[in-house]
Amino acid sequence: MIAEDALIARYLAPLAGPGALGLRDDAALIVPPPGMDLVLTKDALVAGVHFFSDDPPASIARKALRVNLSDLAAKGATPAGFLMALALPADLDESWIAAFAAGLGEDARTYACPLLGGDTVRAAGGLSISITALGWCDSGKMVRRTSGRAGQTLLVSGSIGDAALGLRLRLEPDAPWARALPGPLRAHLADRYLHPYPRNALAGAITAHAAAAMDVSDGLLGDAVKLAAACGIKGLHPRILLDRVPLSPAARAALALAPDLLQTIMAGGDDYEVLMAADPDTVPALLAACAAAGCEASVIGELTLAEDPAFVGADGSAVPFSSLSFQHDWTA
Amino acid sequence: MIAEDALIARYLAPLAGPGALGLRDDAALIVPPPGMDLVLTKDALVAGVHFFSDDPPASIARKALRVNLSDLAAKGATPAGFLMALALPADLDESWIAAFAAGLGEDARTYACPLLGGDTVRAAGGLSISITALGWCDSGKMVRRTSGRAGQTLLVSGSIGDAALGLRLRLEPDAPWARALPGPLRAHLADRYLHPYPRNALAGAITAHAAAAMDVSDGLLGDAVKLAAACGIKGLHPRILLDRVPLSPAARAALALAPDLLQTIMAGGDDYEVLMAADPDTVPALLAACAAAGCEASVIGELTLAEDPAFVGADGSAVPFSSLSFQHDWTA
Repeated sequence: MIAEDALIARYLAPLAGPGALGLRDDAALIVPPPGMDLVLTKDALVAGVHFFSDDPPASIARKALRVNLSDLAAKGATPAGFLMALALPADLDESWIAAFAAGLGEDARTYACPLLGGDTVRAAGGLSISITALGWCDSGKMVRRTSGRAGQTLLVSGSIGDAALGLRLRLEPDAPWARALPGPLRAHLADRYLHPYPRNALAGAITAHAAAAMDVSDGLLGDAVKLAAACGIKGLHPRILLDRVPLSPAARAALALAPDLLQTIMAGGDDYEVLMAADPDTVPALLAACAAAGCEASVIGELTLAEDPAFVGADGSAVPFSSLSFQHDWTA
Repeated sequence: MIAEDALIARYLAPLAGPGALGLRDDAALIVPPPGMDLVLTKDALVAGVHFFSDDPPASIARKALRVNLSDLAAKGATPAGFLMALALPADLDESWIAAFAAGLGEDARTYACPLLGGDTVRAAGGLSISITALGWCDSGKMVRRTSGRAGQTLLVSGSIGDAALGLRLRLEPDAPWARALPGPLRAHLADRYLHPYPRNALAGAITAHAAAAMDVSDGLLGDAVKLAAACGIKGLHPRILLDRVPLSPAARAALALAPDLLQTIMAGGDDYEVLMAADPDTVPALLAACAAAGCEASVIGELTLAEDPAFVGADGSAVPFSSLSFQHDWTA
């Protein structure tokens, strides 16, 4: 048996940053750096919904933190720390917590995002983790989702579809395409599902050269539609050239084996890449800055008011999708 | 059926403050007021653990926000806003969400603490709510838990034990004391369990006159021990005069009917009052400032290094307790 105080002292206090006051106060205390704006984001993960209960505890921890770091990256913000509410099932054993805290601590150091505070409670059902991450950006410089305009180029970082394919592999390991895919490619997809790779390295490039940005979490196509809609310009929509969407060698191989995986790749979500809109004349500088920061970006289309189809294939014709992104819904 | 986007647009966006960017961006954006420090707290509530699943949805919402406001109050901070992760069960109906949002919105206005952002996800088990609340305090003025010293007077706001007695009433409505208690007194206790009354009105008094403070959430006695321990002074402990602990008329009546309820009152928790330590010469000013702010505080003892018993009755003798506070624990 482990009591709440012991759990916090043994596993969470070692992850605490200076503002956390050793997790021994009611609240965290942060002195805002002068000339900076505060950026705040909150994403929650639930066992059986966002991850599998038997995923490695360190991976669950990393995913919980990284999905929040990805939001900060997309806003061009530098991580400052996080608060975490951990709802732990009654039958949890201490080795699970130890491994969870170890993974979380490693990421907190890697991304310079220390634990600032939180709450640890008994879950009624399964495990859930809710994280609020804080970041700073230069005053007035946060990159909005709402500032896209017609004629801007759309770009995306990294590669799309890997995580959603990794999830398909977990759910249907005996599908013909899954069995035909070489082991190292399967391993790449499985890893991308377990572990987002938030693009915090691109924050500077995004701030300097992007007009609008958001993180791709629910599915590239749906998120591109969301970005256009958020701009509040009647008729603004994305036009995405599907063959320009960057795919990893593993996703390319999977798609060659089963062309209907295009739906999963383009709309499956869990990418945690950054979708950017940029004025055409800043695109070369944005591409160069991303490459210099260690993560290539790719031009995938544009924002437009023209009555063009939104998603087009190599031959210029519209490609239909059964859905554009993942969305929770509740049935009464 | 209600989809995530519709739920957010219909029920949560109307609660959003200016920094929330209409809940249509990846993150909230706050411009820190100059000369202020940021205070952050996070408390999560789980159905079946912190509230009953069939509690009124507006009450669940109020409790979730108010337990966080209580932490800000104890630090002397002024609320600035909150982020919320809501994990909603699959079978939730829309009228539940409407009532939850209505209660939350009313409190957000009352306490001037608007919604800044968050996440809405499908719960695997029951409902849970995780809130991160932000507040501001004058630079360097946050009231710590750790700054108590020997010789300081201990005080507490409002009254103690009501909520824990309200919970007992829910669990054992047919206990002899419960049946003997007049209806209006039962109603008072039941209300205090459902609805914390955070002491944000006292923030100014606490900042001006208290040396140390914390909110009483797990049980007065245990929280007083925690405050003393957090100060890091070997041998420092609270000495609490039990007959000085402020009780409501309802708690007084219950205690007269069943003296063993003293355990529940002193250590049951869910009080959401503020425990303060103050230098004896500032106590009159602190008492006056609290009264002027609309919530009386009471002297209940002191912090001491003397080898006195911690909890003493009217005759000066030690009173034993089977536990000092509520604590979650996990059994492997």
